Amino acid sequence: MTTYPSGKLSEEKVFKDPVHRYVHVRDKLIWDLIGTAEFQRLRRIRQLGTTYMTFHGAEHSRFNHSLGVYEIIRRIVDDVFQDREEWDNNERLVSLCAALLHDLGHGPFSHSFEKVFHLDHEDFTQAIILGDTEVNAVLRRMGNRFPKDVAEVIAKTYRNKLVVSLISSQIDADRMDYLQRDAYFTGVSYGHFDMERILRVMRPREDQVVIKHSGMHAVEDYIMSRYQMYWQIYFHPVTRSAEVILTKILHRAKHLYEKNYEFKQPPRHFYSIFEGKVTVEDYVKLDESIIMFYFQTWQEEDDAILSDLCRRFLNRNLFKYIEFNPNSQVKMKMWMELTQLFKKAGIDPDYYLVIDSSSDLPYDFYRPGEEEERLPIHLLMPSGELRELSRQSEIVEAISGKKRTDHKLYFPQDAIDQLSSKRKVKEQIRKLLFEEMR
Amino acid sequence: MTTYPSGKLSEEKVFKDPVHRYVHVRDKLIWDLIGTAEFQRLRRIRQLGTTYMTFHGAEHSRFNHSLGVYEIIRRIVDDVFQDREEWDNNERLVSLCAALLHDLGHGPFSHSFEKVFHLDHEDFTQAIILGDTEVNAVLRRMGNRFPKDVAEVIAKTYRNKLVVSLISSQIDADRMDYLQRDAYFTGVSYGHFDMERILRVMRPREDQVVIKHSGMHAVEDYIMSRYQMYWQIYFHPVTRSAEVILTKILHRAKHLYEKNYEFKQPPRHFYSIFEGKVTVEDYVKLDESIIMFYFQTWQEEDDAILSDLCRRFLNRNLFKYIEFNPNSQVKMKMWMELTQLFKKAGIDPDYYLVIDSSSDLPYDFYRPGEEEERLPIHLLMPSGELRELSRQSEIVEAISGKKRTDHKLYFPQDAIDQLSSKRKVKEQIRKLLFEEMR
Amino acid sequence: MTTYPSGKLSEEKVFKDPVHRYVHVRDKLIWDLIGTAEFQRLRRIRQLGTTYMTFHGAEHSRFNHSLGVYEIIRRIVDDVFQDREEWDNNERLVSLCAALLHDLGHGPFSHSFEKVFHLDHEDFTQAIILGDTEVNAVLRRMGNRFPKDVAEVIAKTYRNKLVVSLISSQIDADRMDYLQRDAYFTGVSYGHFDMERILRVMRPREDQVVIKHSGMHAVEDYIMSRYQMYWQIYFHPVTRSAEVILTKILHRAKHLYEKNYEFKQPPRHFYSIFEGKVTVEDYVKLDESIIMFYFQTWQEEDDAILSDLCRRFLNRNLFKYIEFNPNSQVKMKMWMELTQLFKKAGIDPDYYLVIDSSSDLPYDFYRPGEEEERLPIHLLMPSGELRELSRQSEIVEAISGKKRTDHKLYFPQDAIDQLSSKRKVKEQIRKLLFEEMR
Amino acid sequence: MTTYPSGKLSEEKVFKDPVHRYVHVRDKLIWDLIGTAEFQRLRRIRQLGTTYMTFHGAEHSRFNHSLGVYEIIRRIVDDVFQDREEWDNNERLVSLCAALLHDLGHGPFSHSFEKVFHLDHEDFTQAIILGDTEVNAVLRRMGNRFPKDVAEVIAKTYRNKLVVSLISSQIDADRMDYLQRDAYFTGVSYGHFDMERILRVMRPREDQVVIKHSGMHAVEDYIMSRYQMYWQIYFHPVTRSAEVILTKILHRAKHLYEKNYEFKQPPRHFYSIFEGKVTVEDYVKLDESIIMFYFQTWQEEDDAILSDLCRRFLNRNLFKYIEFNPNSQVKMKMWMELTQLFKKAGIDPDYYLVIDSSSDLPYDFYRPGEEEERLPIHLLMPSGELRELSRQSEIVEAISGKKRTDHKLYFPQDAIDQLSSKRKVKEQIRKLLFEEMR
Repeated sequence: MTTYPSGKLSEEKVFKDPVHRYVHVRDKLIWDLIGTAEFQRLRRIRQLGTTYMTFHGAEHSRFNHSLGVYEIIRRIVDDVFQDREEWDNNERLVSLCAALLHDLGHGPFSHSFEKVFHLDHEDFTQAIILGDTEVNAVLRRMGNRFPKDVAEVIAKTYRNKLVVSLISSQIDADRMDYLQRDAYFTGVSYGHFDMERILRVMRPREDQVVIKHSGMHAVEDYIMSRYQMYWQIYFHPVTRSAEVILTKILHRAKHLYEKNYEFKQPPRHFYSIFEGKVTVEDYVKLDESIIMFYFQTWQEEDDAILSDLCRRFLNRNLFKYIEFNPNSQVKMKMWMELTQLFKKAGIDPDYYLVIDSSSDLPYDFYRPGEEEERLPIHLLMPSGELRELSRQSEIVEAISGKKRTDHKLYFPQDAIDQLSSKRKVKEQIRKLLFEEMR
Repeated sequence: MTTYPSGKLSEEKVFKDPVHRYVHVRDKLIWDLIGTAEFQRLRRIRQLGTTYMTFHGAEHSRFNHSLGVYEIIRRIVDDVFQDREEWDNNERLVSLCAALLHDLGHGPFSHSFEKVFHLDHEDFTQAIILGDTEVNAVLRRMGNRFPKDVAEVIAKTYRNKLVVSLISSQIDADRMDYLQRDAYFTGVSYGHFDMERILRVMRPREDQVVIKHSGMHAVEDYIMSRYQMYWQIYFHPVTRSAEVILTKILHRAKHLYEKNYEFKQPPRHFYSIFEGKVTVEDYVKLDESIIMFYFQTWQEEDDAILSDLCRRFLNRNLFKYIEFNPNSQVKMKMWMELTQLFKKAGIDPDYYLVIDSSSDLPYDFYRPGEEEERLPIHLLMPSGELRELSRQSEIVEAISGKKRTDHKLYFPQDAIDQLSSKRKVKEQIRKLLFEEMR
Repeated sequence: MTTYPSGKLSEEKVFKDPVHRYVHVRDKLIWDLIGTAEFQRLRRIRQLGTTYMTFHGAEHSRFNHSLGVYEIIRRIVDDVFQDREEWDNNERLVSLCAALLHDLGHGPFSHSFEKVFHLDHEDFTQAIILGDTEVNAVLRRMGNRFPKDVAEVIAKTYRNKLVVSLISSQIDADRMDYLQRDAYFTGVSYGHFDMERILRVMRPREDQVVIKHSGMHAVEDYIMSRYQMYWQIYFHPVTRSAEVILTKILHRAKHLYEKNYEFKQPPRHFYSIFEGKVTVEDYVKLDESIIMFYFQTWQEEDDAILSDLCRRFLNRNLFKYIEFNPNSQVKMKMWMELTQLFKKAGIDPDYYLVIDSSSDLPYDFYRPGEEEERLPIHLLMPSGELRELSRQSEIVEAISGKKRTDHKLYFPQDAIDQLSSKRKVKEQIRKLLFEEMR
Repeated sequence: MTTYPSGKLSEEKVFKDPVHRYVHVRDKLIWDLIGTAEFQRLRRIRQLGTTYMTFHGAEHSRFNHSLGVYEIIRRIVDDVFQDREEWDNNERLVSLCAALLHDLGHGPFSHSFEKVFHLDHEDFTQAIILGDTEVNAVLRRMGNRFPKDVAEVIAKTYRNKLVVSLISSQIDADRMDYLQRDAYFTGVSYGHFDMERILRVMRPREDQVVIKHSGMHAVEDYIMSRYQMYWQIYFHPVTRSAEVILTKILHRAKHLYEKNYEFKQPPRHFYSIFEGKVTVEDYVKLDESIIMFYFQTWQEEDDAILSDLCRRFLNRNLFKYIEFNPNSQVKMKMWMELTQLFKKAGIDPDYYLVIDSSSDLPYDFYRPGEEEERLPIHLLMPSGELRELSRQSEIVEAISGKKRTDHKLYFPQDAIDQLSSKRKVKEQIRKLLFEEMR
């Protein structure tokens, strides 16, 4: 191992941050990681995808958020854990790096992108950290094993589970940053909780971070914030409408490519993705300006569906929606009926009649073996005992494990309202949909 | 005139806004303007250009700001002026539209763009409002003369000078929004002033808005905020460094185009601009994702200067700077010497050794006939007399009319520090520059 | 009725308010009420009693809060209800007055005071409004019946139940002000909710205010804020410790008075209270400076208990506490044992060993006939149907009707730790208490 | 010296503070000082005297502020200075104690109190620290010399001038706390500046704290905040009106005492003050509840002036005012004429016609030998040179050394408006005053 670990900047650098006031960087390693091309790329990927169409303030990037997560971990490690014997300060740098880089593999409009192309940003985070990249070169200065350590923390396979739980748990630095940051940029009043207090009551234990009992109410508040942010912001039906259109654009472009459609602006940046053989090198060239460039130029393509969807996305001419329960036989029958009517009306239901579902679990205790296992939050009681949060907090107990799901059916109201052609079938469609809306 | 003016939405629409809490829209006209392609395009143009490279939170768009200016005017007109006899409520809609659309003609990275290509965003604002656009079509519903009225308010030639002063004066809605908004998104503590109080003490007069005497201190605070924002944020030397590189990229691309360089990614979107004959139709296709697309792809061009500058811009590998006074003979001599040395070192000084100057006048009283005339702020004294602000406020008097200018010389420190080639000449360069930095 | 109702001030008056930014007064009636001696007296009564000993910022008065409640009602009535047909604007002034005066009868350290002397601040509010007071004289200018109307709104017996529900319900102006205000002054991050949104979605109905369905999440957030404020602030065990001591001082003073103890500073202001025959005239002379004056001078009384308790209260030398469940036989046995030991140790358990309980119901649906009936919050669904909140909100449903209670046993640790006398019995006490604390 | 210096609490204690979020206490010494009777007394003395009558939120105590100043010094010493060689960490505790105790000698409504009785709170701060008090006993545990050291820091005579400048200079912890705190509690938007940045750029030098050049703008902002706070808050004419009445009450009570007037409530707490021989023991018994008790009971005294002034103060029935320039002969003539007319009208001008002046110097460079010498703020330039702030900052230069003064003449408008008696002379008074007001 080199002497790099103790490599401190001659003078501390600070970033002015609207959420944490300042982000402090003292380690040369961190400074150099921030300067890599792969990390700077996160400036060109929005933190909240299409949310800016609903909340116009939500234009902030993942660069923003990544610095924030880093800063939270820095405060935990340097201000709270520093001198506690349960904390091994040799884990400091790996923790800071994992915090900074945890979202490195996110693509443009990640959520839709991954769904359409069956990609996983976590795989790309690993690949960028371990591949032939500037990030990897900087990390390697700490020793050959170091990039792998950082990657493992992010993958949750790292040997020291305490470090893993700092970055990924039901009360990790990632969530604490994004709840506050997304609330700040959207301007909503949800998302406030007393992070300073939570940090102060965090205690390192062998395999996890625990919370001193006296901080329980701050944690309750955080869980409620999270709940509200999910339903008020992240799952907002207008945002999901933009998401639906985005998804359909990507589907259409892939479909056309596979059909050898002749693009005026050929989707060069997408070739390897369409073909399912994307490399890290190709992947890091993608960002939201690239996507937006194609969407803009595709407005002028001859394919009516592609150009229409791109125009809708760019000009925020989104789909409307109705509540829709796919578990109801009546509703599914209606949906099948609508599908037929859309076809008759010349509106392709594959692209213009879309069911979208969101669901969330506000907090969960541990259910071993179940899909998506979640590590519970443990309180450190005055007696020294650890007690799982929902056993102590009545509020958390009340919502624990309760999955909530919301389904909507999206469609282009303007197209249906335009009665100059196919009037009769459109009126049938309207009747079916409007009965619903009343 | 149609009945459109009184066209109210069936239910008020609101936008959640981090600065003004909510933006309220009751008029169908406003709602429809917001939905036009030309207005939605402002989402793809950042309010503060390259500032996000210095203050990472500053990723907000002109869409954001435009809604904010509209909301301020709406509050003035609907809450403060409403029943005052000096206010003609027939001017309400033209004021709201002018507020909303005042920045419509801004291009991507406006400042640099205009400088390099000798364009003026104000001309394009006029052209979009008056041309064959969606915005024009919506405005025309109010009568054929209406687009012209709106355009004239923005051009400051409108017959009612009171309306003009709401949108453009030394204490207008534009400035009040951007100071607060830019402070919010950058996270700095400057930029706070008591806008609610200022709005409450604004009074309409025949040809201008005046401020009740009791609000003088709030106005002083606003002027100080403005001063700090200019020097702390808008003229930040790191932001200017990014601006310098951006400018040089555009210069280089134009130069190469004129030299018939064969671009791998031909700058199709720039052709008419390079040729000095851009149309409104071409212009509105430009936005920052288009620019960023080209910059990204140009990283792989064979031209070393173009690809290097693009890489620098995208990866925030900016130029360093020293203080530099172009009015000093000694300094100009040094600069000429440096120019020669840069050439010898193989670093083209046209692109890599750049003087940049910023200057600002924090407040000015009226100086008729002088370049850039500024209408002063008038206080309405208890006696009914109007008194120019700097005659009443000692603080404002102290800074009134005092222009402050800052000059810097920018250069790529990394290139100079790389001593593997041209070591000797680079050492001479370093000596000249570093003596300066000490 | 006189012409007073339309009596507007020649110019609107504003109060700078940290919570609502400004409090606006346009009605001469309101201005004159604020100027009465009885209303100004509220400046000398803290909003949160002894809470300032735990949260040093909580020094704000009921004057503050009363203006805040008034301002909220003013916004509801003037900005939200104004033109809705379900709202009768003749109820405007009675609503504003009731809002302003709803806490008029609060005494110093209300909670303890009422408990010890079996008084009820609501009775005194009625008595001040209806008695021979400045407030009554101002109200009577609106007509002889007007004071009675205002009093009835506060007593919840007013004919118009919509007006009553504005001032007193599970989501009334009183609660919305105090949650935000108490959060502001204590500095805690709980207590934030989006009041502006809640006000915007309030709708008048015949007998109550209802909430538009789209505002449900803001209401959930408000209910969670309330829950956190109760347990984090209002029931804080240290505050309750100060409350316990205060109660015991009042008990002791009354006891001594009844025993004809000769006070150095005779409690002249308390005579009629001790004797259970307090008049309005006597009552309004009481405030917290009067109380504090006596406590200060009583530090020098010969009665050891009175002087000790006063010293403790003034110098914040409070009692310590342990968890204590009075429903547990084991605990009650321990308590009886402690009582005996305290006596042996010469520490009077009537004053120095005190059980204190707090309990709260975060939200309740309607349970007719039960003690302390609470009117539920109703959502106005898109269909026009009213639906009780807990039937729609999973979060509220989860906590609805769940009463939470906390019991503590308070005692003077310093006295017990002082082992110079009665060492053996004190060690027994310590053993009993400390086992508990471990 | 004992081992006390290193006496750390077993667990850090925190106070929730609305301004600094948390106040952290790790030293047993500090904890014990906070618990003394003399320090707890500061809870009963408002930070801003009568300002709460103008800004109702300004009810906060000096206890609040004292903790805030302590916290600022703690951050400077522990977070910024800690490892700098110019800082001697042996000065840590004396600095913290001086910060905490710097206002210890303030009496109730300090400003008026001192003026009327020719007292000086700084003398009492010294006396309490050095006298037979709980504070002294706690300090002495650090060694016999320690109380004297603390007292000297506060008196600015301490040997280490760097420590003195932390507590008392033109940019000290005292000012930084009160500007922010008073802005917070009044709710005004002035008073914001970036303290975190200022702390980060403070550097210890041999005899003073200096500010790194890069922090100049933050300091400018602080100086502007200070300017605004003085004129908007501290010198607000309504606050001064309350101050005038308060002063006159104290004068009247002293006068009556000297005339052997028989008080119904004899001013026992004031005897030694009236007689000019107050002791520390008497002094610390005084606080604002004591004062308010007397004012309340004096409302019922037979002396018409005393009871009237007390009623005015308690019920906020204040004096009105006009601008008044005592340097103008015309004005002084008018004042003499008014004095005669007041006498004729039976309104004692000694109590009811009062000139009050306020003046402030926003910032000053060093003027040796002048009254009220002020140490200037020095910037640490990149070259290592120290440069006085006003030589570098144009804004500060502009206002430096410019004293601003405001004079007002106060009188009871209601008494003059009451024309049932002495109509003619009152009309003359009104004419003189109203001409002025127009």
